[in-house]
Amino acid sequence: MDAHESAERIAEVFADFQSYFSKEQDLREEIRSTVRELEQTAREIHAVLQKVHQKDGSENVVNVCKSTESNFETARKQFKELSAKIPENQYYRFNDHWKYALQKLSFLSALVTYLKTEKLVSREETAAMIGVKLRQAEGFHMDLDDYLIGLLQMASELSRLAVNSVTAGDFHRPMRIAKFVAELDAGFRLLNLKNDALRKRFDGLKYDLKKVEEVVYDLSIRGLKPVEGT
Amino acid sequence: MDAHESAERIAEVFADFQSYFSKEQDLREEIRSTVRELEQTAREIHAVLQKVHQKDGSENVVNVCKSTESNFETARKQFKELSAKIPENQYYRFNDHWKYALQKLSFLSALVTYLKTEKLVSREETAAMIGVKLRQAEGFHMDLDDYLIGLLQMASELSRLAVNSVTAGDFHRPMRIAKFVAELDAGFRLLNLKNDALRKRFDGLKYDLKKVEEVVYDLSIRGLKPVEGT
Amino acid sequence: MDAHESAERIAEVFADFQSYFSKEQDLREEIRSTVRELEQTAREIHAVLQKVHQKDGSENVVNVCKSTESNFETARKQFKELSAKIPENQYYRFNDHWKYALQKLSFLSALVTYLKTEKLVSREETAAMIGVKLRQAEGFHMDLDDYLIGLLQMASELSRLAVNSVTAGDFHRPMRIAKFVAELDAGFRLLNLKNDALRKRFDGLKYDLKKVEEVVYDLSIRGLKPVEGT
Amino acid sequence: MDAHESAERIAEVFADFQSYFSKEQDLREEIRSTVRELEQTAREIHAVLQKVHQKDGSENVVNVCKSTESNFETARKQFKELSAKIPENQYYRFNDHWKYALQKLSFLSALVTYLKTEKLVSREETAAMIGVKLRQAEGFHMDLDDYLIGLLQMASELSRLAVNSVTAGDFHRPMRIAKFVAELDAGFRLLNLKNDALRKRFDGLKYDLKKVEEVVYDLSIRGLKPVEGT
Repeated sequence: MDAHESAERIAEVFADFQSYFSKEQDLREEIRSTVRELEQTAREIHAVLQKVHQKDGSENVVNVCKSTESNFETARKQFKELSAKIPENQYYRFNDHWKYALQKLSFLSALVTYLKTEKLVSREETAAMIGVKLRQAEGFHMDLDDYLIGLLQMASELSRLAVNSVTAGDFHRPMRIAKFVAELDAGFRLLNLKNDALRKRFDGLKYDLKKVEEVVYDLSIRGLKPVEGT
Repeated sequence: MDAHESAERIAEVFADFQSYFSKEQDLREEIRSTVRELEQTAREIHAVLQKVHQKDGSENVVNVCKSTESNFETARKQFKELSAKIPENQYYRFNDHWKYALQKLSFLSALVTYLKTEKLVSREETAAMIGVKLRQAEGFHMDLDDYLIGLLQMASELSRLAVNSVTAGDFHRPMRIAKFVAELDAGFRLLNLKNDALRKRFDGLKYDLKKVEEVVYDLSIRGLKPVEGT
Repeated sequence: MDAHESAERIAEVFADFQSYFSKEQDLREEIRSTVRELEQTAREIHAVLQKVHQKDGSENVVNVCKSTESNFETARKQFKELSAKIPENQYYRFNDHWKYALQKLSFLSALVTYLKTEKLVSREETAAMIGVKLRQAEGFHMDLDDYLIGLLQMASELSRLAVNSVTAGDFHRPMRIAKFVAELDAGFRLLNLKNDALRKRFDGLKYDLKKVEEVVYDLSIRGLKPVEGT
Repeated sequence: MDAHESAERIAEVFADFQSYFSKEQDLREEIRSTVRELEQTAREIHAVLQKVHQKDGSENVVNVCKSTESNFETARKQFKELSAKIPENQYYRFNDHWKYALQKLSFLSALVTYLKTEKLVSREETAAMIGVKLRQAEGFHMDLDDYLIGLLQMASELSRLAVNSVTAGDFHRPMRIAKFVAELDAGFRLLNLKNDALRKRFDGLKYDLKKVEEVVYDLSIRGLKPVEGT
């Protein structure tokens, strides 16, 4: 192989590599574009749910929740589209692109579920509401971390709802929220978390719990705390 | 569901989550342990190949290369073990653990191949030497980035070899290295790299090329440059 | 062309370049000087509007707003002067010089408009109040970002006003501010913001909203919340 | 305007803003895509010009330069496409996207011009070679800074060429390069540069000049310096 041949061969090989990089670049562009749509859907659900913080909405929680159903339908369709774009075995390669949107939708499904039933959404229910699988082996799925971060975001929104419920004249709801957030806190304390994003988010839970407890304290001290069973 | 039941249920669910996290923690420990062995193998190969920088070894490159064969055999076995530990579809989840070792072995296979044949190792040859697959779909594989970073590490080692060859009285080798590194540089220039680890490493290639060119320059100016064809 | 000529020619060409750089430097000085005057005008308007945080001013909002009119007149004149200095097509070249002043005047026009009408100022109204165009194609204009950053600065000022209204014995105003800031927040939630200055500023809106909600909460819990319609 | 109407109106207005942001996002995507193509063209020209550093190419500079002509043709077409995408008056708004590509092509046109004529390319010639205007008023143009940064990149490449010319046995070329880079350095010293990217790049010119001077020194001290006129 003389000098000329060797240079030519290297050039050819690298041209192949460039075509590989170009394809990856294009794929990332497509993923980003679908994720942007998902984020828009999440923002719209969140904007609708803001109504529960105001008097009108807080008295009509069921209808507010109902009006997000078509948006969740859209989210499920968008996750299906996204899922179709990801090459087999490469979920974790591109994971960073949709991680934030997935956590936000996990949060929103936990919030809607609490508002409707005052119970903790399960992983299974969250996965079903947003249209992803539960386990890696099944395909495009939601990691346990993402589900748990969604719960922590819900706790933060609920502490704000406790405050605004008082404003709306509802003194029962803050009591129930306080109990629920305390249970959630007890649950998280069972976990031995690594020093990662989830742990950092969990560190904020104590402030949400404190806030809710202060609301209950304010009601108690002013004799506004409802008698249980009323 | 009364208050007590709800707290119990949340505790149960979170205990399940903790068992999931414990399993993951154990898996990470096992991966780390195998990767430590791989890194040891890579260090041993690198130590053996250092001999080519000295007069004895530089005159006996073929034997030096041959003596690394059993280490490459070990590396292949270790990658097999590692591969068996990774759950399906989760290569990219744990990727960071072995990325560095994989790049170093890619570098070492490129260096051995150059020393033996004075040609550029192909991706296929590298994958075969270190016992990994070429494509994600086939299983535990080597990414294009890791192969390319290996080539860049080789260029750096070759610029050092050019200097030491002069010391050892071999004035032909620097000429051939200069040509080879220039071709490699021309190849890399065809790539449109993102602003990532590979791009940063590529930015260092120009210094390696410059170093080699200065060696050849020093030979020329002192009349030590061999006549072509000798 | 002999050696001497080539050196002469290069010197001549670079002397031309220096004259170009000098002219640009002068232009920047002139722009900076006009912008300093604009910033002074903005500071004066802001100082006058501070009165609404005090009992006297809060009862006399219309007059306080009225007394800023001549300052807005001055601002319009100063933007006209500034606009005349910017070479065609180069708005975005020198944009950084006046961006801050433009945002502050956008904020002030939003604040005055809210104080007078309790409505959200439109982009059109803001542009008219401070004497800039609405679209790039029309000349010296205000970007959408600058208008939105002005709104966010207003939300921050309004959260302070909610607190001070309570002090001044006005328990209605905080209720109206809470509702307005919540609507603004819902609006901003619909936007898909890049990770830039606007996004960073928007991240602060939740604290302003929280502050206002806490004021209303304090009124509720103390039985000071006005009955709707009074 | 009752409460419901006000919230609806704000939502509508912000939906309009989001549509504005989406359009801008799309435009940026399109710009990025064309700029990527321009960068690819620049890389190809640069890869071709690397040949002058090797013996074959250095003896055949005219042909090497000639073979870049079709790439420059492509660059001109790509700048035309890019130019068509930029809304009137908004060159400086999106400027950061193509600044790097523009500087690299300015460098390449300076290098090709020097290799062919051993003269300094003028701004006019550079603009014509890469298909952009000379002045803002004329449309999509090249700033003086970009032209000058291109010259500084050329000086760096020429210092490398001086080294490799000696290797190729050409002792005349380093002398001419030394003279040219010294003239360029004298030209730049006439400029009163702000503390910006251009100034930082200019600070590197002294190292390029030093390198070239050392080559000439090495030739002199070994009696290899050609007598002038030979």
